[in-house]
Amino acid sequence: MAGSYKTENGLAHLRVKYSDRFYMGPGRADLLQGIVETGSIAASGKRMGMSYKRAWSLVQALNDGWGQPLVETSRGGAAQGGASLTADGQTVLRSYRAMQEATRGAIAEEFEAVTRRLVDISKAT
Amino acid sequence: MAGSYKTENGLAHLRVKYSDRFYMGPGRADLLQGIVETGSIAASGKRMGMSYKRAWSLVQALNDGWGQPLVETSRGGAAQGGASLTADGQTVLRSYRAMQEATRGAIAEEFEAVTRRLVDISKAT
Repeated sequence: MAGSYKTENGLAHLRVKYSDRFYMGPGRADLLQGIVETGSIAASGKRMGMSYKRAWSLVQALNDGWGQPLVETSRGGAAQGGASLTADGQTVLRSYRAMQEATRGAIAEEFEAVTRRLVDISKAT
Repeated sequence: MAGSYKTENGLAHLRVKYSDRFYMGPGRADLLQGIVETGSIAASGKRMGMSYKRAWSLVQALNDGWGQPLVETSRGGAAQGGASLTADGQTVLRSYRAMQEATRGAIAEEFEAVTRRLVDISKAT
């Protein structure tokens, strides 16, 4: 997942499990967001270095796990047709981004305290 | 990592990156906590289904990444000697657990809203 390779310090990976069949994580959020931004499953996957097949199977896993479509294609599933998020897809993505932001705030104080200690160590050695 | 397979809903994986060389995640936290509870790297790893070799290399990655020991062995590194956390190891573990708790609180409202929607869908289908 692209989310795993981001290089900023701080929150690096947040996975939230909703059921045995559905969870959200940074890679899934980036794929959904890419579909919003490019209007295409293939183009969204490509931005993340995924094959079309892999992006499509991830969309299927999202839709199947949720139980209703989060992503819909404008030509009824045609291989490279336009794609967009359903209302549920928008809700799930927006909620995940809100959780990432809330988490960054919630961990900030502890993160900074541990980082200060780490900086002290690297100065001393 | 054991942390990846926990089955409770809600926060499933929190990774915090402190530098290009050091991060904390649920598996690392569980291994450190197991060392506190068992006094042994081997026993802690075994609880998580890890070989001794893998547990030991993870401890080395933690110590090397941090730049000073987080885990120390009572017999200077002897293969199956007793092990404990240094003051830094205790700080890093305590801080990570505090961040997990803070994150659970921070995501609770969004988590519950999305879960309610998911439950409505599963009732409807």
